[in-house]
Amino acid sequence: MKLWQKENTVTSEKIERFTVGKDREMDLYLAEFDVLGNLAHATMLETIGLLTSEELTDLRAELKVIYDQIEKGSFVIEDGVEDVHSQVELMLTRKLGDTGKKIHSGRSRNDQVLVDMKLYTRNRLFQVVQATEKLFSTLIKKSEEHKNDLLPGYTHLQIAMPSSFGLWFGAYAEGLIDDVIQLNAAYRLANRNPLGSGAGYGSSFPLNRTLTTELLGFEGMHHNVVYAQMSRGRTEQAALTAISSLAATVSRLAMDVCLYNSQNFSFIVLPDDLTTGSSIMPHKKNPDVAELLRAKTNRMKALPMEITMVLSNLPSGYHRDMQLLKEILMPAFDEILDCLDIASFMLENMKIKQNLLDDAKYDLLFSVERVNELVINGVPFRDAYKQVGAEIADGSYAAQRVLKHTHEGSIGNLQSKEIEERMKKEIGAFGYDKVTAALEELLKM
Amino acid sequence: MKLWQKENTVTSEKIERFTVGKDREMDLYLAEFDVLGNLAHATMLETIGLLTSEELTDLRAELKVIYDQIEKGSFVIEDGVEDVHSQVELMLTRKLGDTGKKIHSGRSRNDQVLVDMKLYTRNRLFQVVQATEKLFSTLIKKSEEHKNDLLPGYTHLQIAMPSSFGLWFGAYAEGLIDDVIQLNAAYRLANRNPLGSGAGYGSSFPLNRTLTTELLGFEGMHHNVVYAQMSRGRTEQAALTAISSLAATVSRLAMDVCLYNSQNFSFIVLPDDLTTGSSIMPHKKNPDVAELLRAKTNRMKALPMEITMVLSNLPSGYHRDMQLLKEILMPAFDEILDCLDIASFMLENMKIKQNLLDDAKYDLLFSVERVNELVINGVPFRDAYKQVGAEIADGSYAAQRVLKHTHEGSIGNLQSKEIEERMKKEIGAFGYDKVTAALEELLKM
Amino acid sequence: MKLWQKENTVTSEKIERFTVGKDREMDLYLAEFDVLGNLAHATMLETIGLLTSEELTDLRAELKVIYDQIEKGSFVIEDGVEDVHSQVELMLTRKLGDTGKKIHSGRSRNDQVLVDMKLYTRNRLFQVVQATEKLFSTLIKKSEEHKNDLLPGYTHLQIAMPSSFGLWFGAYAEGLIDDVIQLNAAYRLANRNPLGSGAGYGSSFPLNRTLTTELLGFEGMHHNVVYAQMSRGRTEQAALTAISSLAATVSRLAMDVCLYNSQNFSFIVLPDDLTTGSSIMPHKKNPDVAELLRAKTNRMKALPMEITMVLSNLPSGYHRDMQLLKEILMPAFDEILDCLDIASFMLENMKIKQNLLDDAKYDLLFSVERVNELVINGVPFRDAYKQVGAEIADGSYAAQRVLKHTHEGSIGNLQSKEIEERMKKEIGAFGYDKVTAALEELLKM
Amino acid sequence: MKLWQKENTVTSEKIERFTVGKDREMDLYLAEFDVLGNLAHATMLETIGLLTSEELTDLRAELKVIYDQIEKGSFVIEDGVEDVHSQVELMLTRKLGDTGKKIHSGRSRNDQVLVDMKLYTRNRLFQVVQATEKLFSTLIKKSEEHKNDLLPGYTHLQIAMPSSFGLWFGAYAEGLIDDVIQLNAAYRLANRNPLGSGAGYGSSFPLNRTLTTELLGFEGMHHNVVYAQMSRGRTEQAALTAISSLAATVSRLAMDVCLYNSQNFSFIVLPDDLTTGSSIMPHKKNPDVAELLRAKTNRMKALPMEITMVLSNLPSGYHRDMQLLKEILMPAFDEILDCLDIASFMLENMKIKQNLLDDAKYDLLFSVERVNELVINGVPFRDAYKQVGAEIADGSYAAQRVLKHTHEGSIGNLQSKEIEERMKKEIGAFGYDKVTAALEELLKM
Repeated sequence: MKLWQKENTVTSEKIERFTVGKDREMDLYLAEFDVLGNLAHATMLETIGLLTSEELTDLRAELKVIYDQIEKGSFVIEDGVEDVHSQVELMLTRKLGDTGKKIHSGRSRNDQVLVDMKLYTRNRLFQVVQATEKLFSTLIKKSEEHKNDLLPGYTHLQIAMPSSFGLWFGAYAEGLIDDVIQLNAAYRLANRNPLGSGAGYGSSFPLNRTLTTELLGFEGMHHNVVYAQMSRGRTEQAALTAISSLAATVSRLAMDVCLYNSQNFSFIVLPDDLTTGSSIMPHKKNPDVAELLRAKTNRMKALPMEITMVLSNLPSGYHRDMQLLKEILMPAFDEILDCLDIASFMLENMKIKQNLLDDAKYDLLFSVERVNELVINGVPFRDAYKQVGAEIADGSYAAQRVLKHTHEGSIGNLQSKEIEERMKKEIGAFGYDKVTAALEELLKM
Repeated sequence: MKLWQKENTVTSEKIERFTVGKDREMDLYLAEFDVLGNLAHATMLETIGLLTSEELTDLRAELKVIYDQIEKGSFVIEDGVEDVHSQVELMLTRKLGDTGKKIHSGRSRNDQVLVDMKLYTRNRLFQVVQATEKLFSTLIKKSEEHKNDLLPGYTHLQIAMPSSFGLWFGAYAEGLIDDVIQLNAAYRLANRNPLGSGAGYGSSFPLNRTLTTELLGFEGMHHNVVYAQMSRGRTEQAALTAISSLAATVSRLAMDVCLYNSQNFSFIVLPDDLTTGSSIMPHKKNPDVAELLRAKTNRMKALPMEITMVLSNLPSGYHRDMQLLKEILMPAFDEILDCLDIASFMLENMKIKQNLLDDAKYDLLFSVERVNELVINGVPFRDAYKQVGAEIADGSYAAQRVLKHTHEGSIGNLQSKEIEERMKKEIGAFGYDKVTAALEELLKM
Repeated sequence: MKLWQKENTVTSEKIERFTVGKDREMDLYLAEFDVLGNLAHATMLETIGLLTSEELTDLRAELKVIYDQIEKGSFVIEDGVEDVHSQVELMLTRKLGDTGKKIHSGRSRNDQVLVDMKLYTRNRLFQVVQATEKLFSTLIKKSEEHKNDLLPGYTHLQIAMPSSFGLWFGAYAEGLIDDVIQLNAAYRLANRNPLGSGAGYGSSFPLNRTLTTELLGFEGMHHNVVYAQMSRGRTEQAALTAISSLAATVSRLAMDVCLYNSQNFSFIVLPDDLTTGSSIMPHKKNPDVAELLRAKTNRMKALPMEITMVLSNLPSGYHRDMQLLKEILMPAFDEILDCLDIASFMLENMKIKQNLLDDAKYDLLFSVERVNELVINGVPFRDAYKQVGAEIADGSYAAQRVLKHTHEGSIGNLQSKEIEERMKKEIGAFGYDKVTAALEELLKM
Repeated sequence: MKLWQKENTVTSEKIERFTVGKDREMDLYLAEFDVLGNLAHATMLETIGLLTSEELTDLRAELKVIYDQIEKGSFVIEDGVEDVHSQVELMLTRKLGDTGKKIHSGRSRNDQVLVDMKLYTRNRLFQVVQATEKLFSTLIKKSEEHKNDLLPGYTHLQIAMPSSFGLWFGAYAEGLIDDVIQLNAAYRLANRNPLGSGAGYGSSFPLNRTLTTELLGFEGMHHNVVYAQMSRGRTEQAALTAISSLAATVSRLAMDVCLYNSQNFSFIVLPDDLTTGSSIMPHKKNPDVAELLRAKTNRMKALPMEITMVLSNLPSGYHRDMQLLKEILMPAFDEILDCLDIASFMLENMKIKQNLLDDAKYDLLFSVERVNELVINGVPFRDAYKQVGAEIADGSYAAQRVLKHTHEGSIGNLQSKEIEERMKKEIGAFGYDKVTAALEELLKM
């Protein structure tokens, strides 16, 4: 019998380890949001008679104690406790007895996890937006600083037409606006209340879902309870899709940096801090930081596919498979925030080379200027194009290094102000101040 | 010499075939948008003195002739003509001589293709939205029709709690709203004017990009010319990401249909039109349409990855690689429209089975109703839960098939009106009527 | 009633179009293999008494007539006939009446399609191997031709140590060997007989599967009939995985070509045939062929994911979803063969630049030579490394452009012979001559 | 100045954390293989005069001391030491002074990491093969145990023909053979010696690469030094591709288990250990272990894509990006081994239900038996098929539950012996005993 027990214990541990996985670790990310969800749920339960006002007062007081512990970093999930939700309920029941046992009325673990995940994701997505704004500001600043520093422009990796560092930095800044738009689409999915959907089939209690929606500062609710459950996975995927779009922007920037730092381009200089040596070649200063930035952001582009892999062809209704989504999503937030920080740092410390276009090898960059000169003098464009082609072929072409680009978004007219205003407007569209206000109110009640 | 020529011809043909690929075929999708882009560009060129008003009048007239040909289906890309853009310029030059040769002033093939792709993508994305709205309406209609028809609700593929066909159809309807939000994020990326960015480095002509932005009904322009070029690929990817999200919704619906149609579930009946037989088993009625719907929409989920594969680690600046994006994007629009149409058709013709929950095997679906009954009588939830568990174990549990779900989004309160209003609002946010108005105006000028 | 019929017709057409998709087009790829499968199946049926020897003789004669039509290109799938398998059975039944109706005994459409797909995939995979061998030979030839032409070697895109065109071409040659190994793993999966597995559950007839295995030249059979059916999709995925590995090799080669052709590297020269101009810049010679080669092969890397998308989480047993695999797999063979051909062509016509390392900017490439000189004179490596670092810092380092790399696989000892022998051995491992012999025998019987 | 230093420290820490990432953690996996690589390299250096035989003796002794520490678990990478390679060299230099400084002669960090990764990957891949063999044995055992227990066979999720648990278990067993073939293709890529390729451009020392190839038990070397470096990433990708194929097999098995465990199928029973309850529904026994097994293995199918993301469009030559491959590859081995173990455990503890086919709802499973009966009595197959179809339609069909499937791989003839022999042969093809022998020899020298 002892043997069997031992076997059983071994078995249980093996299965426990397999099913819990990284879940307890991930759950710590959710603790503060679990308390907020509990506050809203309890407040609502009181309005429909499932808690007395005294019970609510007690629960609110204890939940705030737990919230403080979380903020101070002293909250833990005890050994043998399955997850953050059980831990909070356990703490309430220890302190409040039967009152604690009542808080799960009209709720399932499913909608509890869902609402925590929504609150968490909403919060983290906006942090990503803020970090994106910081990188954006750095890019705009560098763009303005270097608006007069010319750079060869390439198409097909062939020298094409004159560009500038102003244009190059500014391009990535503007790109981030489109990333913020994608982040907003994900944010809106996260900003919907699933609480009250239970296990995906609602409840026979007369829950007031409109109330919890307001208390938690959501834009609105996932009305249909089956859909509320189906939004699990979708929210994560939308978030990772937006993050992967942002990562792609950073990755391309890092690729440019690696290329421009090659001796064969030699457009920029990286400080020693951002380079490393070789174990064999004493002359090396490798741009490892830019390369790792590229690699990490490139790797993130596979994240939406990981979610797809897990969800594909699962019929509707909750499946335990969805637990795994946490460990796909949550570390990704840390990683993108880290990458955005390093990208800003790299840009701030990078030096650019001046007067690059004086080199004779860039003569042909100015061929279109010559075509345009002819056009202004009345030669139809197609004929002017041919004439300059002939001049290049017979050697009579001479680059005139005078640029007068003035139209919107060109070398001489970067429109940083307009770009900054767009970014401001897009970030404003999140309405995150309303979220902050609602949550502060909930904690104060 | 003849031999060499022949060899050369063989070579040229091989290379020609490889580089052109499916591009001429894809370009036909762009024809009408190329004319619109030309109209806007020419109108702008006149305002900055690069065309006379007579030249503009002539060009506008000829462009409208070409537009009519496209609408009638008589427009072709002639043999030996590289692409739709060359074809249009050729037709103008044939008719108008030097005037035709002037239209490419201040423009590159790069921003010309880009503006065509933006106009095309904006147009097609909104078509997808309209088809989504149609599927949405079908789902809402079915949801209301069957709001009283109960269905077993599952979690973990285990019977869980009572659900209804009303909830099931309605869940997919609500899900489509989130797809429309994702489509909108892509649409906004498509709704930006790249014209005037040239080969990605602008022009020394004083182009008026604000004017072409207004003429083409864009929300705004891609300000930075380098970024305008970088938006190539991003726009396609955002579009395909949104389409793949929509495809995932349809795919999951199809999976449910296949499962519910299995004899072991037997919740729905597909008409003969939607089933096929077997070459060996005379009894078979297979749900091939639902399966192919599932497969086609699942396959579409790989589309964003195809774009990523092509773009990854390409430095900034145009590369010919981007040509391939057309043949990834364009057929996808046809495919998703087809799938949305078939999905609507399948739903309209599907029959559902009634009184499913009367079967004794679904008794346990009502266990939470019993728990809640105890809770209402004052038993704390956790204790009620344990008590019902014991009742099930000792055989004293008896299912009481009475449901009184009344809260927002539950069986008895589907909130179809609220859901319909949300969809209407999200579609309104596209502001597509302004696009239509602008393009009509442009064609009338 | 007429109205209903008309509606019905419209419906049927819509559904027909949706379910058939590209299947009839794809099925033409299978025609010759369907005849081979029929020959083997009929031969076997006669041995177990389900066909008389006269019936077999008639069937064999007619099947060879059909085979000849296919070879001549005159075989068609008639309007209204669902697929190639029905077409062949129809032709047999038209000619032979009841005898034709007997050929499907002991077989299902499922194992019939499967065996056709196996024969087709086996055949095409070996074609890919042969095209790979051609590219390999080109690379080895170029490697030997240019074994004395030095090239800067890079790590981190920073100049590192001397390399050579011999090494560069040879590296891609050797890489193809590993692709052939991957192709072999896929080939072995294709080289297994599924015939006799019926719809995935076998037959009550005493089929002789060993006989059809031999007749069709398979390495062996898929024993378990349920697994035979599960190999559908797996075979396609293994094939596309191997193709995508090969595509990755070609893609990286194309990336190098694009980079080395940039004015900033300028290591190679592409002939006019392989470049194109710009619509705006009269000086351009863009490496479009290399770029499209890169893009097409990069795109192919998403193919295995398309299969995964379709198959994920499908329970065991055939699903109609698998039909879609044909249109993922079959065009991929055409595409990779095309890319391999263009890659060979590009390499053959590319010129390389000589004496590249004479340029002073490559001085530091020789720093390790200086370290090694010190090591040979007794300085421990770590100390020598530091000393040369100091020489570089104080300007006393002087590049000595003498190379004496002699070890296996280095600049002075490319080991092309050894590499060629490995490739020969790996291709021999396919044993494709046995396949050819078996099929010729089957057609002669 | 102090301020600057402090800033610098903060900077350095941030950069340090970003560049090191999880690398030190990953490097511990490599420690034993780094010692093996050092042993082989040092042995070779002595043969070409770069070490004296005394120096070699000292180095070998110290390396074995380090190897013992690793085996005992007492080896650590000290704070401030960059990686495992530096740690080992540091320990040697501390003990042996100048002799330690000599060991890196003729080597770069690049080929040192590469050889460690090859040895590690080769080792772990074979561990995966062994765990696969264990799962295979479990499946074969269960297949034989339940060869007479019938199971409904499905196509299109519709009941099709009789199957058996014997067939079902056996199918997954046979599938694992194909996974082993894929693992072998990856293994062969890992089983090639890159040592001597330096930073990818070889060395001017007369290294004897044939010798290190033999000492380390490799099948052969990567001849071309540039290709040796290009194999970085490829090896990882091949390994993860094979692992993802294996994961797909396990994932499908888990999907079947989840489905068969649903009340609507009810073919199997999972013990309590393998199920969990619900927080709201007191009746639940959810198959969480099977679901997590499905999710984890599904997620692994995205792994090859992660590698692709990092490598795409990187030109040839080492890039720091490749460091990231370690943290993609290494945890995957742990994960797949865990999943294989749990899969075996789940199968061993799962109960199957008997006499499933007696239920009247499975009557139609026997329709083909009736067709075949008519065929044997001389009715051509197509006519028999129609006749049984008519019998089903008019209600005269009666299922005769007699099965006599005897052909290879069918219900009555599972061919477990043949399948076991194939597996044995495929595992034998790895020749892993030669690897073990070589490494033991190397440690004994």
